[in-house]
Amino acid sequence: MKRILSVLVENHFGVLARVSGLFSARGFNIDSLTVGETEDPTVSRMTIVTHGDDPVLEQIMKQLNKLVDVIKVVDLTNEDTIDRELVLAKINATATTRPDIIQVVNTFRAKVVDVGSNSLTVEVTGTESKLDAMMELLKPFGIRELVRTGLISVARKREITVKGKEGKTEKQKKASAKKKAEEDMSEE
Amino acid sequence: MKRILSVLVENHFGVLARVSGLFSARGFNIDSLTVGETEDPTVSRMTIVTHGDDPVLEQIMKQLNKLVDVIKVVDLTNEDTIDRELVLAKINATATTRPDIIQVVNTFRAKVVDVGSNSLTVEVTGTESKLDAMMELLKPFGIRELVRTGLISVARKREITVKGKEGKTEKQKKASAKKKAEEDMSEE
Repeated sequence: MKRILSVLVENHFGVLARVSGLFSARGFNIDSLTVGETEDPTVSRMTIVTHGDDPVLEQIMKQLNKLVDVIKVVDLTNEDTIDRELVLAKINATATTRPDIIQVVNTFRAKVVDVGSNSLTVEVTGTESKLDAMMELLKPFGIRELVRTGLISVARKREITVKGKEGKTEKQKKASAKKKAEEDMSEE
Repeated sequence: MKRILSVLVENHFGVLARVSGLFSARGFNIDSLTVGETEDPTVSRMTIVTHGDDPVLEQIMKQLNKLVDVIKVVDLTNEDTIDRELVLAKINATATTRPDIIQVVNTFRAKVVDVGSNSLTVEVTGTESKLDAMMELLKPFGIRELVRTGLISVARKREITVKGKEGKTEKQKKASAKKKAEEDMSEE
């Protein structure tokens, strides 16, 4: 089952390695991951798309919450969300095929962002299924290069923000770090 | 100095943890990272934006190339590229402020993708500077939630594709794995 996690983290180095390490340590593949700044430059947001067993994912979420740099972990899988992904695709194009490609581009409300002597570069945003459908139509022309950002997701009914950040005080952080260290030791 | 790396990797679990681990081990912060599928489903592409000393980054690139799951590493920093990022932003909106927000949205060729009773959700793509400029204009209304994908980048003059994949045969991979193991040992 596909799962979407929104993870707010302190913008420190090493956080990404620790977060992705938790997934790989449990044999969980990450289908896509994006990480970028939020409205607060000290905080980054990761959107992680993965799939797999519920119990293992529950465990990963618990462990993520224990990381000191993690502010908040939210499972958006069953929420009403707006999902979007961005794709840049460079497509083979000749004088003959160019109009056909542009027709596909217009149908999907995509944009031509660059024209080469024998290629077109197209920008398109949408849900995964829309993008897959469009790429399927462009495939016969020859896709030279495809770059996808991976999904980002916003819940319609509520906000996943850093407001809870103050809740994790330095003291709590240290407590959680200590607890984690103890557990790591007991695991050995 | 800002650096953009395009990294093609085998779509195996653990690759992201190993790649991000290389950066954090050297104290390099990753400003943004996206990872998604390419035209070949067995291959993923990471676009990594970072900043820092040239010599250290050169070293990271060399080490990346040594990872068995890494197919290709390209530094796009000084190339002529098309750069795009996707943002979803939920903005406070009242009956009074809604027209003003929509004017900003139209100016930046953004799209309203959801309307709540007291909010608007906006989708916009562009270069980092365009997105920053737009967010600056939206800030006074109150940004409730901001989700960015991080940058993706396509070179105008050439393709960064998996064509070189065959070049890394199983034998070469094993050789590179062996070499890496030896170096790891000699570092200890």
